[in-house]
Amino acid sequence: MTRTVYVNGDYLPEGDAKVSIFDRGFLMADGVYEVTSVLDGKLIDFDGHVKRLWRSLAELEMTCPVSEAELLAMHRELVARNGIDQGMIYLQVTRGNPGDRSFVFPPADLPGTIVAFTQNIPNLADAPAAKTGFKVITIPDLRWSRVDIKTVQLLYPSMGKMAAKKAGVDDSWFTDEDGAVTEGTSNNAYIVKGNRIITRQLGNDILHGITRAAVLRFAEEAQFEVEERAFTAAEAQGADEAFSTAASIFVMPVVEVDGKPVGSGKPGPVAVRLREIYLDEMRKAAI
Amino acid sequence: MTRTVYVNGDYLPEGDAKVSIFDRGFLMADGVYEVTSVLDGKLIDFDGHVKRLWRSLAELEMTCPVSEAELLAMHRELVARNGIDQGMIYLQVTRGNPGDRSFVFPPADLPGTIVAFTQNIPNLADAPAAKTGFKVITIPDLRWSRVDIKTVQLLYPSMGKMAAKKAGVDDSWFTDEDGAVTEGTSNNAYIVKGNRIITRQLGNDILHGITRAAVLRFAEEAQFEVEERAFTAAEAQGADEAFSTAASIFVMPVVEVDGKPVGSGKPGPVAVRLREIYLDEMRKAAI
Repeated sequence: MTRTVYVNGDYLPEGDAKVSIFDRGFLMADGVYEVTSVLDGKLIDFDGHVKRLWRSLAELEMTCPVSEAELLAMHRELVARNGIDQGMIYLQVTRGNPGDRSFVFPPADLPGTIVAFTQNIPNLADAPAAKTGFKVITIPDLRWSRVDIKTVQLLYPSMGKMAAKKAGVDDSWFTDEDGAVTEGTSNNAYIVKGNRIITRQLGNDILHGITRAAVLRFAEEAQFEVEERAFTAAEAQGADEAFSTAASIFVMPVVEVDGKPVGSGKPGPVAVRLREIYLDEMRKAAI
Repeated sequence: MTRTVYVNGDYLPEGDAKVSIFDRGFLMADGVYEVTSVLDGKLIDFDGHVKRLWRSLAELEMTCPVSEAELLAMHRELVARNGIDQGMIYLQVTRGNPGDRSFVFPPADLPGTIVAFTQNIPNLADAPAAKTGFKVITIPDLRWSRVDIKTVQLLYPSMGKMAAKKAGVDDSWFTDEDGAVTEGTSNNAYIVKGNRIITRQLGNDILHGITRAAVLRFAEEAQFEVEERAFTAAEAQGADEAFSTAASIFVMPVVEVDGKPVGSGKPGPVAVRLREIYLDEMRKAAI
C-alpha cells in the first residue's frame, strides 16, 4: 500500500513527497524531529512530544510553521488515511528552503519545511524483542554536545546501530569520556538495583526522553526509588536488570551488556512491570 | 537567471531540483560534501577535493554513485551551463533513499543520491573582505568527534556563523576543552610568529583542508617554517598575524580575535603574500 505522507500542508503519495535540494534539512542538518507512537489508532503522549518539539525549535531560534492544533489534526489525518492501528508518526521541521546555501540563517520569516509520515507496525505493543530483551554493546559517545536538542544529526546514532548489528546485538549504548553510559542510539538507558531504578540525570548530553519522564513518574507511583545519576557498563553488568525506553520501544528489557548477561540474562520483573504499567496508562491517556 | 543544477544524473532548473523526504541526507544527515572553487571558468584543486570525498565516503562505508571522470565532466558541465567565471561548485553525496526511515544502513547496493550546484561569485578572487580581513570570536567547539569526515552535520558551524554575526564580526573560531583553537566554522585557522606559520595538527578534530595542504606546501616552498600544533585565542591575539584558509576564501587575513587586534589590526604581509602565491599557483594548475 502506498503511504500518504504530509509535506508542507499537502497530503501526497509517498513517491511524490519531495523537498528542495536547497532545504536546510538536506544541506545542513538544520532540522528537528519527533516520533509519536500510535496504539489503537490513538496518539501516545502527543502533548509531551509537542512540548519537546517546541523546546528544540526554540533552542535553535526556529518556529513551527503550523500551530499545535494543526499538528494534532495532521497527525490524526495521517493515522486515518493510512489506517494505522499500531505504529509511529515521524514529524520533521527544518529551517526551510532559502533557495541557496549559506551558513547564515535565512530571514526568520522564511517558512520552515514540515514533513510527516507514518510507519505501520502491527505488533508494536507486543514486539517480540520485548519478550527476549535487547543485547547491547557500548561504544564511545562521539555526538555533538547538545543532544538534548532533538536534531536530525543522526549519523553517529545510525553508525552506532550498525556497530551493534555487526556485533550481532540489538543496540549500542554510548559512553562518555569517564566510561559512564549516556544513552542508547535512540533511547534512554537504565539499570535496576533492588527497588532502585537508576538513569542518567538530564543535561545537554542526553535526550530528555518523553517516555523517560513518563516511566520515571509511573515508577515512583509504583513505589520504586528513582536515582538520577550516571552509571558505567560494568555497573550495568552487575545490576539486577537493565532496560531502555523510547517512544518506539516503550520499556525494552536489556539482558546483556558488552557480552555479559545482566542479572538472569532474561527480561527482569521490574522492566516487564514498568512496560505493562506504561502501556496501560498510555493507552488510557491516548488521544 | 535560473541556475541549472545536477540531481542524480539530470540537469534541472533549480526550482525542480528535489530529493525524496526519505533521503538519508534529509532524515539523518547521512551525507558528505565538497566545495570546489572556480577561477577563470576552471576548477581549483579538483583532484584534492575528489580524494577527500573518496576518503569521507570510505570512512562512512559509502560509495560514490559516479566515477571521478563523471564527477569532473559534471563539474565542467555545470560551469559551462551556468556561465561561471568565478564562483563555487557544491557537491553532496548521501546514502540515498531507501523509501523509509531506519537507523540501520540500507543495503550497500542502494545507489546514493548525488546533487551539485554552482554559486556565481564574480569577485571571488578579489573579495573585499580579503582587503580588510576577518574579525573572529571564539566559541566552544560542540561538534561531533569526527569532523575530519566532511559530513553535512553543519548545524553547529551554522550556529557559530550566526554567533559571529550577532557579535558584529565575520566568523567564529572553535576552541576545545583546553581552550585551544580547533578551526573556524568552515575554514582552518593559523597564526604567524616571525617566519613561522602555526596551525593545528591534523586529527579527527579538524577538517583536513585541501586549501590547508596547498597553502602549507607553498609556505614551505617560500621558506616559511611550518609548525603544526594547537594554539589558544590568547596566543593568536599576541601573534604577528592570523589567517584562515578554505576553498571558498583561499587565504583570508584575520585581524581581530575576541575583540583584540592581531598584530597591526590589518591584514599582515605573510597572509597577503600566501594569498597571492596560492591564487597564482592554483590558477596555473586549474583544470
